[in-house]
Amino acid sequence: MRLWGGIEAGGTKFVCAVGSGPDNIVASTRFPTTTPAETISQAVAFFAAEATHYQIAAIGIGAFGPADPNPASSTFGYVTTTPKPGWNQVNFAGAVQRELGVPIGFDTDVNVAALGEQRWGVAQGLSTFVYLTIGTGIGGGIIVNNQRLHGLMHPEVGHMRLPHDWVQDPFPGNCPVHGDCWEGLAAGPAIAERWGTPAEMLPPDHPAWALEAHYLALGVVNLILTLAPERVVMGGGVMEQRHLFSLLRYEVQELLNGYLPLPAVTETIDGYIVPPALGSRAGVLGAIALAQEVSGTVGW
Amino acid sequence: MRLWGGIEAGGTKFVCAVGSGPDNIVASTRFPTTTPAETISQAVAFFAAEATHYQIAAIGIGAFGPADPNPASSTFGYVTTTPKPGWNQVNFAGAVQRELGVPIGFDTDVNVAALGEQRWGVAQGLSTFVYLTIGTGIGGGIIVNNQRLHGLMHPEVGHMRLPHDWVQDPFPGNCPVHGDCWEGLAAGPAIAERWGTPAEMLPPDHPAWALEAHYLALGVVNLILTLAPERVVMGGGVMEQRHLFSLLRYEVQELLNGYLPLPAVTETIDGYIVPPALGSRAGVLGAIALAQEVSGTVGW
Repeated sequence: MRLWGGIEAGGTKFVCAVGSGPDNIVASTRFPTTTPAETISQAVAFFAAEATHYQIAAIGIGAFGPADPNPASSTFGYVTTTPKPGWNQVNFAGAVQRELGVPIGFDTDVNVAALGEQRWGVAQGLSTFVYLTIGTGIGGGIIVNNQRLHGLMHPEVGHMRLPHDWVQDPFPGNCPVHGDCWEGLAAGPAIAERWGTPAEMLPPDHPAWALEAHYLALGVVNLILTLAPERVVMGGGVMEQRHLFSLLRYEVQELLNGYLPLPAVTETIDGYIVPPALGSRAGVLGAIALAQEVSGTVGW
Repeated sequence: MRLWGGIEAGGTKFVCAVGSGPDNIVASTRFPTTTPAETISQAVAFFAAEATHYQIAAIGIGAFGPADPNPASSTFGYVTTTPKPGWNQVNFAGAVQRELGVPIGFDTDVNVAALGEQRWGVAQGLSTFVYLTIGTGIGGGIIVNNQRLHGLMHPEVGHMRLPHDWVQDPFPGNCPVHGDCWEGLAAGPAIAERWGTPAEMLPPDHPAWALEAHYLALGVVNLILTLAPERVVMGGGVMEQRHLFSLLRYEVQELLNGYLPLPAVTETIDGYIVPPALGSRAGVLGAIALAQEVSGTVGW
């Protein structure tokens, strides 16, 4: 049986799977992200063992960043300037390719998750959309005209600058580089630090959520104005608080103030800003979708 | 001789030209934008007269917006929900096509100017970049992976929300829809209203320019973080103040604070944030480039 491998390479854990789509995963594993040597070896060992049962046509990798997703670059497939100990300038895709001898697809974790949602989730049939993850940081995968956006590197939307009313919210932000950028104000750790309580412990009627919806809406509005996405998919730990979606949608409409003549925004926003259909599996399934793209086969 | 027509359809004036590129414009004209009937007729009459001398293979239009640049849409080629009297829901491209019987390319003025800079200006060889115009408003044309970005409509980057320090700058912004969005704080009319003097009358050492560079940098930084453009081209009346570029580049570096490992930003920013090479001709030349694209011929 011809299948594909996917690696969701996060900063804290790796998820690896073999299969052809959401309904056909024949094997999977997860383990903590430690040193590159140890972690990449564990991934390789998993796929090598599975390869005795299945033909693995290609492997897709969705990696934490900064990373180099440009196939024309000499450092394609590297995790590049990450502060994560040991991972600086590591040839991740090259190591996997050398050990397993199959074609490797490589992109950022968020671009790969976007691809998963486009193949099997809420972005099916869309050609221009955004996939955001709001968790320990804020990241965005962007697909424009059916192609993943890389540009000079890859998007880093979590570091956008947004209005911050210091009277309403004296919390200075906790991004070590920028202070009160989007992620410094609105990622999970910012919520926890501002209120002295982990985000998941704050009740739905806590004022934390109206403020959070406000900050999320500011960033989403800027992305809508820049990319005119056909849909905005929002996942990650913070968005598990599903009550956030209605607050956020309302704030987006308020901020845009009717400026964009888009019924998707002004009338049917419930279907415009949505959670991912694949949930926490978007990453590893997207990696399988990327592997299918790389091997020239779409597995459905 | 086989040539192409271009229309730069601005909110205040139209520029029309016939030619094949910057070094070969055989005829051009400009006239104020009045009613759609009158203005479109003037453009049609110009091309009809030129068509007695030259074969015009196609006409490209770069239009003020909001407009519909999506060829698959039933309102493709329309100026849509503009507040400009008489122009609401006008089938601009259709009218020109009907009268002249040639293929018509249609996009926003800024996407078309971006195309011009890509064909003949400072964006040659780039596949992902931004063209901004800072004038009576702020607009952005975006090309990603060599394709113009439209999404659900087209970018409207001028309405992004940015940090606004009300103590440092009590001016509330003058966008009629959003108040202190990017264009409400930093377009030409905002400068004039804040300081009580037209922007072009303010001397280079006036504090207006440091504040302007700060606001421009905030928006540019958000675009860099979202699109990872290979270059940022900045034209329009306000950018005629060339001293703004060095202030702005410095502010961009300060705001990014070394976060992006991009030598283009950290080391060679003088070549990264640049004025357009085609200057005020970017629009009409881009329209000719679009016409060439539409007629399946690149005229160089």
